[in-house]
Amino acid sequence: MRVAGIELGGTKVVVAAGTGPDDLGDPVRIATTDPVATMQAVADALELLWPFDAIGIASFGPLCLDPDDADGLRITATPKPGWSQTRLAAPLAERFGVPVRLDTDVNGAALGEGRWGAAQGLRDFAYITVGTGVGVGLVVNGAPVHGLLHPEAGHLLVRRDPVRDPYGGHCPFHGDCLEGLACGPAIAARVGRPAEELDDAHPVWPLVGDYIGQLCASLMLVTAPRRIILGGGVGQRPGVRAAAEAAMRIYLAGYLQSPAFERDIVVPPGLGSLSGVLGAITIARK
Amino acid sequence: MRVAGIELGGTKVVVAAGTGPDDLGDPVRIATTDPVATMQAVADALELLWPFDAIGIASFGPLCLDPDDADGLRITATPKPGWSQTRLAAPLAERFGVPVRLDTDVNGAALGEGRWGAAQGLRDFAYITVGTGVGVGLVVNGAPVHGLLHPEAGHLLVRRDPVRDPYGGHCPFHGDCLEGLACGPAIAARVGRPAEELDDAHPVWPLVGDYIGQLCASLMLVTAPRRIILGGGVGQRPGVRAAAEAAMRIYLAGYLQSPAFERDIVVPPGLGSLSGVLGAITIARK
Repeated sequence: MRVAGIELGGTKVVVAAGTGPDDLGDPVRIATTDPVATMQAVADALELLWPFDAIGIASFGPLCLDPDDADGLRITATPKPGWSQTRLAAPLAERFGVPVRLDTDVNGAALGEGRWGAAQGLRDFAYITVGTGVGVGLVVNGAPVHGLLHPEAGHLLVRRDPVRDPYGGHCPFHGDCLEGLACGPAIAARVGRPAEELDDAHPVWPLVGDYIGQLCASLMLVTAPRRIILGGGVGQRPGVRAAAEAAMRIYLAGYLQSPAFERDIVVPPGLGSLSGVLGAITIARK
Repeated sequence: MRVAGIELGGTKVVVAAGTGPDDLGDPVRIATTDPVATMQAVADALELLWPFDAIGIASFGPLCLDPDDADGLRITATPKPGWSQTRLAAPLAERFGVPVRLDTDVNGAALGEGRWGAAQGLRDFAYITVGTGVGVGLVVNGAPVHGLLHPEAGHLLVRRDPVRDPYGGHCPFHGDCLEGLACGPAIAARVGRPAEELDDAHPVWPLVGDYIGQLCASLMLVTAPRRIILGGGVGQRPGVRAAAEAAMRIYLAGYLQSPAFERDIVVPPGLGSLSGVLGAITIARK
């Protein structure tokens, strides 16, 4: 089934159509500006990709994913100027006459990794991205988790030792939640330089790995994913994944026993920079 | 469909058969001793309840719930003497010739509450019991969560202020994880008297409510349950539920927005002392 996928990010939108990685073609990239101009450019890009049987959108959030909500599938109260309450599905469904399905960018990435990437064949797994923020996509029993809203596990409380890490965190809601401590801007605020400029031996990386390991331990205790894919600019820094795996095991302290622990639970993504738009393709095929 | 349900607990087993709460009859209660004698007594009780089309077991854990595991659905490495590696499903399936289904006691209680109790009509909710230990059952997209093992969210890390609460916790694995701080034995160790003897004004109850509220906040951030049912001897002490609801909101700090927050998320169970065996009945009907 040929479908269209839209990866809607805070700085850029990626649009493509196909059945999967083998016939995706060159994705179209569009700068994210105001919602009217951006969604107009997305629709124009989709016209050139016609025909397709469905549209999937993997979007930044927070999102309303409730199909019974009178205001439709949309972005809700986002700090991104102008985008609050932007309806994403209905305008495209009207224009193209095909079903439009929406999920979070991270649930999309998880679904794409499950279909074609590092979680193939698994029914229970997680996708974490640590970059400008921390996002978590979750698949349980083969389906993405939504619940009342959708996973926001990037904001889980973690334990911070103020002697080792006196930085109080930058989350405007929670201060030193995981995102407040481990995302790129938190690293930059702590060390006074952009995270990208720090070399691999900088002591902040094991600290960040420890915090991500606490998230992984909490996920193991709540939904017990068989694999945890760690992506994002911070998550893919050398050493961070291994530090997170080790920290997860320290925090779990041998309590959970399974042959699965003979191998790494925390693994790198399999789809690289295409995970977002392939996630959107997977959402469309749902 | 008339089915049999077995609530297998650490101190007693409850066995009943029926289609639901209306025709359950008087459940049979059996003391939990060694596994051979106990499961023999369970089988004898089931003979008297014959006929039934399936058997459901809601058991203490940890459990192997993997239908493809060569050693079968069973209790794995439990601290309870003699019970490690006890196969629960296969012997009863052979004797009665009906399907035998197994899940955790807390997933069972959650499923029962979803079918007949405080979570009717919901597809995403949680059941927490705080008593001798802390257990969490989770339903996501209408189905119980298993993953690699099953939820063990009673062992989530929480934040403890050593000034307010100098007690270091009693969990042999994690020290001051949630269970190590909030279960009945932890309360008794902290104040030097059994938890049941403490009056409702004792200052330990708001402290326990705070820790349970941290668990509720973490669950909201991971699977976003629409309702969290709080049971168990500690969980149902006056004031604890309200303290947990309030603490959850403080830890979430307004980050998650939904009209659902206009009402309490944390609610008492609807099935009382029958939630365990009704959970087992629900597991059998799956």
